[in-house]
Amino acid sequence: MIIGKVVGSIVSTRKQENLIGNKFMIVEPVNSGKNQVIAIDNIGAGIGEYVLVAQGSAARIGCGMPDAPIDAAIVGIVDNM
Amino acid sequence: MIIGKVVGSIVSTRKQENLIGNKFMIVEPVNSGKNQVIAIDNIGAGIGEYVLVAQGSAARIGCGMPDAPIDAAIVGIVDNM
Amino acid sequence: MIIGKVVGSIVSTRKQENLIGNKFMIVEPVNSGKNQVIAIDNIGAGIGEYVLVAQGSAARIGCGMPDAPIDAAIVGIVDNM
Amino acid sequence: MIIGKVVGSIVSTRKQENLIGNKFMIVEPVNSGKNQVIAIDNIGAGIGEYVLVAQGSAARIGCGMPDAPIDAAIVGIVDNM
Amino acid sequence: MIIGKVVGSIVSTRKQENLIGNKFMIVEPVNSGKNQVIAIDNIGAGIGEYVLVAQGSAARIGCGMPDAPIDAAIVGIVDNM
Repeated sequence: MIIGKVVGSIVSTRKQENLIGNKFMIVEPVNSGKNQVIAIDNIGAGIGEYVLVAQGSAARIGCGMPDAPIDAAIVGIVDNM
Repeated sequence: MIIGKVVGSIVSTRKQENLIGNKFMIVEPVNSGKNQVIAIDNIGAGIGEYVLVAQGSAARIGCGMPDAPIDAAIVGIVDNM
Repeated sequence: MIIGKVVGSIVSTRKQENLIGNKFMIVEPVNSGKNQVIAIDNIGAGIGEYVLVAQGSAARIGCGMPDAPIDAAIVGIVDNM
Repeated sequence: MIIGKVVGSIVSTRKQENLIGNKFMIVEPVNSGKNQVIAIDNIGAGIGEYVLVAQGSAARIGCGMPDAPIDAAIVGIVDNM
Repeated sequence: MIIGKVVGSIVSTRKQENLIGNKFMIVEPVNSGKNQVIAIDNIGAGIGEYVLVAQGSAARIGCGMPDAPIDAAIVGIVDNM
């Protein structure tokens, strides 16, 4: 996983059907490169919060959406940074 | 996922049989490195549009083509950038 | 796998349910880039130790948690560096 | 996927049994970083041709070799560059 | 896959149970970045040899260890470099 800071969200009206109902957060890695990640959020992370992001098959399988085109998910909120 | 801008498309006449019928778009990442990604497009993204791209097993499984050699797919069009 | 040095740990109170009970260690790669990895630890690695980290589906499947959103795990402690 | 240029091939006499019969091409990415990829080739790509390369599980599953240690495959030849 | 040069090995006494019996080689990529990879070796590669390394799920599934936390494996020895 990586730690990142939630810096925004995106809206996508035209999207794959099995993505409907998900929130897409823009996450900036902390000490893990400069490439922003767009991650779904089931935890309720707010902008400015530091989060734990899982990537790859862990994101869709670990979040109970094995058939959705999801490769990154916020899976925890970091208590202190 | 990453956000990218569709900057072109490619044509491949000789290709793996289970790729036939797909469109291959050239996507330039936005705030996520400089490496172009070739992604299939089921959504109907046009050149110049900003899109959400899923990578890895999420691309083929999440787009209903689990047996195709696809590692990147456009899964949404971003409303505003 | 990569070799890394354990440099800290993080606490996440609000997290995905299937992550409960895991320890999250901050690992700094050795000779393998500069991007920190957050890895679960089943081995009992201490801060300052050098460890072997498996990434991707190997982390959750190889550690007996195939349904958890885990993409990195400490799977060994390196005897000498 | 990425686009790459085939710049050579490699020969490996001692190899994993389930790799026997495959050709291994050296592919140089185009607009996608500088890291060469060694990809199997089922399409018949020649040196100097521009190809579409699938990576990760898509390579072995999408090319009908789900049990082989293959993480990259040439899956198409690009018509024009 | 990538080509790499075997530059050493590591010893890990305390490790995940399903890793016991494997050799862990330190591989330095050739023309594929600077990040060292720790790969298991079933082929019998010696230090100084050039090898083909498979990464990701291909490493554990393609080497007959689908349940082990292995994300990189030496799957061939390159005849000439």
